[in-house]
Amino acid sequence: MTVQTMDTTSSAVFTVQRLVRFSDCDPAGMVFYPQYFVMLNGLVEDWFTQGLQVNYAHFLGERRLGLPMASLQCDFKVPSRMGETIALHLRLLRQGKRSLTLGVQCTGADNTLRWSAQAVVVTTSLEHDGSISIPPDVVQGIARWQTLSGETA
Amino acid sequence: MTVQTMDTTSSAVFTVQRLVRFSDCDPAGMVFYPQYFVMLNGLVEDWFTQGLQVNYAHFLGERRLGLPMASLQCDFKVPSRMGETIALHLRLLRQGKRSLTLGVQCTGADNTLRWSAQAVVVTTSLEHDGSISIPPDVVQGIARWQTLSGETA
Amino acid sequence: MTVQTMDTTSSAVFTVQRLVRFSDCDPAGMVFYPQYFVMLNGLVEDWFTQGLQVNYAHFLGERRLGLPMASLQCDFKVPSRMGETIALHLRLLRQGKRSLTLGVQCTGADNTLRWSAQAVVVTTSLEHDGSISIPPDVVQGIARWQTLSGETA
Amino acid sequence: MTVQTMDTTSSAVFTVQRLVRFSDCDPAGMVFYPQYFVMLNGLVEDWFTQGLQVNYAHFLGERRLGLPMASLQCDFKVPSRMGETIALHLRLLRQGKRSLTLGVQCTGADNTLRWSAQAVVVTTSLEHDGSISIPPDVVQGIARWQTLSGETA
Repeated sequence: MTVQTMDTTSSAVFTVQRLVRFSDCDPAGMVFYPQYFVMLNGLVEDWFTQGLQVNYAHFLGERRLGLPMASLQCDFKVPSRMGETIALHLRLLRQGKRSLTLGVQCTGADNTLRWSAQAVVVTTSLEHDGSISIPPDVVQGIARWQTLSGETA
Repeated sequence: MTVQTMDTTSSAVFTVQRLVRFSDCDPAGMVFYPQYFVMLNGLVEDWFTQGLQVNYAHFLGERRLGLPMASLQCDFKVPSRMGETIALHLRLLRQGKRSLTLGVQCTGADNTLRWSAQAVVVTTSLEHDGSISIPPDVVQGIARWQTLSGETA
Repeated sequence: MTVQTMDTTSSAVFTVQRLVRFSDCDPAGMVFYPQYFVMLNGLVEDWFTQGLQVNYAHFLGERRLGLPMASLQCDFKVPSRMGETIALHLRLLRQGKRSLTLGVQCTGADNTLRWSAQAVVVTTSLEHDGSISIPPDVVQGIARWQTLSGETA
Repeated sequence: MTVQTMDTTSSAVFTVQRLVRFSDCDPAGMVFYPQYFVMLNGLVEDWFTQGLQVNYAHFLGERRLGLPMASLQCDFKVPSRMGETIALHLRLLRQGKRSLTLGVQCTGADNTLRWSAQAVVVTTSLEHDGSISIPPDVVQGIARWQTLSGETA
């Protein structure tokens, strides 16, 4: 019997900080929410390359693998404004055989929660567009990151 | 006692069609999902202006009202590719006192479901950033649209 | 001796209209200018597919050809605001062996000039990233479009 | 007689580095050129805030001043690909009474020129949409930046 998923009880968190730019904002002077998902994509990109030491550009380009979003749930609490520095925090909530469930929180400099999301990304092959098992180097990168970055509970 | 919300059992649906453009697509040649939310925003814009006959630009500009996203839940089923024409269908699932719950489905020309979302938008005043009751013209616009566009169950 | 270029003296013009959306605008409530170039790209896309009857998505996707921008010159005159309908007008200024020089004007509903641009796009192969001669179907499409749409001087 | 403009012969240059992200790239895997102008806007933003010590968000938000693009000329030489780190270099070419002419070069890690642009930005008031003299703190910030960052010729 194969255990295909694992509830991640690691406290590892990957954080990036980001200036809210003019180009992120809408006529109300607040971040236009689709732009938050561009940031979320950049967060996953940095988590792969820096956190897991799996080069994201190489993953998509040379290796022709993909990491499309399968589902997304997001609650927006407090708007963010031009000139603010916000932080995006990524946690791995669940590691499936072919998917990763990510918990993301965005906070302001004042530490208030701006939004939080739960996102399921799937590992795929761009050759046939189907899902594939999470590649071994990603699995190993996650284990290493969890050991280095957090205290495994 | 005030009934503040109403489950909308109207079958009214507002649909727009949209060419998937080069600028919508990522290096995998598929729509970059944040771009779907830019489309979703455009759908709500068109629904207001054309469907409800409440000018959206005027709503935000002159009237200084807002319609921020409070929560969003989205399932991505099948990717959409450059050159395809996709359709976005909006239904009003629930009309609250200060919020609207929208059900959105995106389909391809082949009628396959590409993604579906449930979005809660809140009516706010840009002056004080707080929520406000849905303005009377929007309430009336919704009633008119439901009568004209669908069969009220 | 081969004549490699041709100054186009055709008066053919390809026009699309476009609502200025919330998502096009910056915190000043005006179109964020990079968004004009997204529109310009859409204009070329529509000109190919509708005007020249050369499917743009097929051109880039299946045929693996490209149409990158080589140079761009743009003067911004009057800002465009959310809710306005603007028109983009494309003229072919010069047809080279491997490039097209496009003249684009953007006007408001009041017929004022918002911006004008001159753009040189090059036909390339995505296989080797080098420039290629303008494909025959594009050359023929241009000739047909100029005959149908304008009066050749 | 008032000399209203000054050819800047300072060698001061303001540089930022930037990872080319998935979200910057088009279906050809290369930076979609309008995204370069989003980067250029960010460059000017950082130059103001960090280089000139004039808070850009405050400049647009609280002070209600603007810095719209009046004209732009850009030559694209070599495409940039996902995963590359590119550098954007800003020089002040000319300081007018109500405008700044910026020279921008984008280079790759291999030091090849990717594109270069000349951009004229105008200082405006968002209250009346008209041009205004460059505010004194910007003038002083420029002088300070030129002294600190470069050798005045």
